[in-house]
Amino acid sequence: MTGMFDLGLERGPANHQPMTPIRFLERAALVWPDHTAIIHGRIRRSYAEFWTRARRLASALASAGIGKGDTVSVMLANTPEMIECHFGVPMCGAVLHTINTRLDAAAVAFQLDHGDAKLVIVDREFSAVMAEALALAEVAPQVIDVDDSEYPADAATPQGRAIGRTDYEAFLASGDPAFDWLPPQDEWDAIALNYTSGTTGNPKGAVYHHRGATLMAYSNTVHAALGRHPVYLWTLPMFHCNGWCFPWTLALTGGTHVCLRWVRAGAIYEALADHKVTHLCGAPIVMQGLINASGEERRELPHAVNFNTAGAPPPASVIDGIEAMGFVVNHIYGLTETYGPSVVNEWKGDWDGKDRTERAELKSRQGVRYLPLDELAVLDPETMQPVPADGETLGEVMFRGNIVMKGYLKNPRATEEAFAGGWFHSGDLGVMHPDGYVQLKDRSKDIIISGGENISSIEVENVIFAHPAVMLAAVIAHPHPKWGETPVAYVELKPGAEAGKQDIIGWARQHLAHYKCPTDVVFCEIPRTSTGKLQKFRLREMAKGG
Amino acid sequence: MTGMFDLGLERGPANHQPMTPIRFLERAALVWPDHTAIIHGRIRRSYAEFWTRARRLASALASAGIGKGDTVSVMLANTPEMIECHFGVPMCGAVLHTINTRLDAAAVAFQLDHGDAKLVIVDREFSAVMAEALALAEVAPQVIDVDDSEYPADAATPQGRAIGRTDYEAFLASGDPAFDWLPPQDEWDAIALNYTSGTTGNPKGAVYHHRGATLMAYSNTVHAALGRHPVYLWTLPMFHCNGWCFPWTLALTGGTHVCLRWVRAGAIYEALADHKVTHLCGAPIVMQGLINASGEERRELPHAVNFNTAGAPPPASVIDGIEAMGFVVNHIYGLTETYGPSVVNEWKGDWDGKDRTERAELKSRQGVRYLPLDELAVLDPETMQPVPADGETLGEVMFRGNIVMKGYLKNPRATEEAFAGGWFHSGDLGVMHPDGYVQLKDRSKDIIISGGENISSIEVENVIFAHPAVMLAAVIAHPHPKWGETPVAYVELKPGAEAGKQDIIGWARQHLAHYKCPTDVVFCEIPRTSTGKLQKFRLREMAKGG
Repeated sequence: MTGMFDLGLERGPANHQPMTPIRFLERAALVWPDHTAIIHGRIRRSYAEFWTRARRLASALASAGIGKGDTVSVMLANTPEMIECHFGVPMCGAVLHTINTRLDAAAVAFQLDHGDAKLVIVDREFSAVMAEALALAEVAPQVIDVDDSEYPADAATPQGRAIGRTDYEAFLASGDPAFDWLPPQDEWDAIALNYTSGTTGNPKGAVYHHRGATLMAYSNTVHAALGRHPVYLWTLPMFHCNGWCFPWTLALTGGTHVCLRWVRAGAIYEALADHKVTHLCGAPIVMQGLINASGEERRELPHAVNFNTAGAPPPASVIDGIEAMGFVVNHIYGLTETYGPSVVNEWKGDWDGKDRTERAELKSRQGVRYLPLDELAVLDPETMQPVPADGETLGEVMFRGNIVMKGYLKNPRATEEAFAGGWFHSGDLGVMHPDGYVQLKDRSKDIIISGGENISSIEVENVIFAHPAVMLAAVIAHPHPKWGETPVAYVELKPGAEAGKQDIIGWARQHLAHYKCPTDVVFCEIPRTSTGKLQKFRLREMAKGG
Repeated sequence: MTGMFDLGLERGPANHQPMTPIRFLERAALVWPDHTAIIHGRIRRSYAEFWTRARRLASALASAGIGKGDTVSVMLANTPEMIECHFGVPMCGAVLHTINTRLDAAAVAFQLDHGDAKLVIVDREFSAVMAEALALAEVAPQVIDVDDSEYPADAATPQGRAIGRTDYEAFLASGDPAFDWLPPQDEWDAIALNYTSGTTGNPKGAVYHHRGATLMAYSNTVHAALGRHPVYLWTLPMFHCNGWCFPWTLALTGGTHVCLRWVRAGAIYEALADHKVTHLCGAPIVMQGLINASGEERRELPHAVNFNTAGAPPPASVIDGIEAMGFVVNHIYGLTETYGPSVVNEWKGDWDGKDRTERAELKSRQGVRYLPLDELAVLDPETMQPVPADGETLGEVMFRGNIVMKGYLKNPRATEEAFAGGWFHSGDLGVMHPDGYVQLKDRSKDIIISGGENISSIEVENVIFAHPAVMLAAVIAHPHPKWGETPVAYVELKPGAEAGKQDIIGWARQHLAHYKCPTDVVFCEIPRTSTGKLQKFRLREMAKGG
């Protein structure tokens, strides 16, 4: 039945438009055309230039045959091209697929095939891996090279050779600066594709929509207290959950992007001081790097700098240390499936009066829902009922709302499982405190978080399993002073077979990205249940025991 | 054709929920339960109490038979009850209809009937008018009285008698504090009904939806630079465009509402100082009142206070005066049909360096689109083509986006006209400056055509305003045998000031082309609406009559 508040009051072009973060850049170029949008080495680009380049990119892509629903895969560092792709790609109707730059060729090839890449944009730092991946892949996308003019001539790792049909700048130059960009037909249209490093089997492709990206821009602005014209340093990889949606967010407030190819303490301090950076994001390991920096690397902070951290629960000692240096820590939490952060440790004024240890402990809790998240709960996954808010009873952290992905690409079964019962199941175990704040107690059991990157223990195990001398392998996280955690392999050899630590590690390095390789190998009998399931929790107990 | 980015990736409860500003209050009560949400006289209410009372209200309404799509009409001052109604009413699925408290009984009766009021909540300051209106109206809604405990015993106008079946507090007490509130089924569902003060024929009822109210909350937060925990003084009537959506907006950042029944300079200064107010909204006339306040009424500002002004283009002299007193003026513009403000004069850093006059002139422009507004344009209403961005060519200001009303209630013809060609037609005439900023020149019906030349009444008013003896000025067309029309000025002088017709005309000639100067000056009290808008149609009636 249509009531009087609906009759004749339908949606139309005057009062209903698909939300998209592209509008923020369009607006920024109108309002602040001369304001510096992007800093990279000697490069300074205004919002007017940024917008023009994004339109050129969209136009060039359209001319290359890329259109609605096509995948553009990029393997890029945190450079201006990566920021431009966050706009130019969706502006021609396509979907931006960002590839983790640490992956090996086989993993990249899997994503190119699974995501059905139509065009690849690759920075020459990664062209060797990409060339290998393209050789392995079934798809045959067009390739565009990014040749960074600011790449240091004396870099330890020199740029690779060009592998594409053309260079990014030439490609851009071929585009129309007045291109009539394509808004989404529906705000549910996909804007980005982000592969998880899922714990079981192949990675899953989380699909983001324009609606969620827009709401993330609004809420990041509030939760990170960006204010007008923030200066944002790119320490968080943009290939990771689209840099928590900050490429889109900064356009909302006319912020300045400060690019950074390699995350090193000295370069961070330099950028903070030289560009008067106000905000940055990163895993606790980045904070640790700043704390442990040498005197030479350090520079005085220009003012209090907001550090948004997530990716692992920050140890109290790290929060304590970094805040003493003049940073303000904002602790956020989320998953690839929730556009990055969707939970925030909302800091209360009267907590300032507590002592340092208590403050750090309060800050290490994950917190409450982001503004556009409708519900955050800790549920018993069997009954789907909330656990008591006692700070002790474990349950699974679950999400519901407009900043949860559309689902996993071409994986209806995984999507269905993830959304069972009308909630997104994070796989993370946590408790609900009496004050309504959530705290994680166990990252989903097996994942290893090393330097902010998720490593699937099963992926590593599968490689080690394949070694001819190995009968059984289990990989768990060991704490590591620099990386937070690293994988350690527990191995049972086949009867009569022989292999040493270095054999196993060397084997892994042939088949895996280096950061995924075990840093140690323990030869022992691996505990298992009567049905043969590996009991990793026993290994963890063993590890703790010494 | 369903592409791979849509196949199996449909909306579901886990990843798609109707947006509603109710979630902001729910969240604020979780995150900041003890923070002061509302101040009124001696009353202090925390966010936990606010949320509980809103749930009780929704519950009591539901028990009274009010449900989805029903209209709850309120005639209330800027008191806590009015704020609560902005949540409690939609929380039972109903639509909030706020009535201008200055209307006469016949006008109120029209709205009650047209809006099909099911329940009325009325402050006893207005019970006499409401009783008369109810006698005139065909509908027979239930009536609840608000008896404000903070109503001054010695007020010039004493409270009227109770006319309802029960008192608001008793009604609330009957409600369940744990009521399971009803989210909208669709974010396009109506949340509020606001009648325009249309100058011709019957007023039209602009219908707002949850989607627009939510987006207004995000964007007000950014555009008014609310920050965390703002303290907001209620000088703008909440019956006017739902107080520009600030009742919902403040819940987003955990702000404090400071209530104010009557807008008087002394009371404003007192509230600013006593409660350390950070933000307020109002028409330029409120600023004028603050400028002209006596020494006794004045109090020192606790810090820079943000004044968001709209409702009439603020004369440069007023902006100049109020900023000199320590206020920061944010000039915004919109209409009842656009949820109040949807255009903002985005201030640029390098404009700070300009001289006072230039700054005030820049600030008197209406500006650029609000973040959730997709498009703002000055179009030729015949061709629907943009006028040249030359700062001179007149066109009609038009809007398109998610903060435009659903349409006019039970008025398909007016809705169709308003949305003709896929744009909302504001009826305001303006120009587009080369920098993309819009400036109003006049309401289309206020433009004066003299000897074939268009004269902007606003331009003439601004000049007369600047005369030291003038407090208020309105310029309308009078018929003229030779020129067709000429401008005539209606002027209110400052208390104690003196000026004659020739002083005003002579002043105008110093600052304007002769053909734009008033040919006559009438000294009188200028009729205005409750929100401070000049009522030129009343002046025209006066002119016709005499």
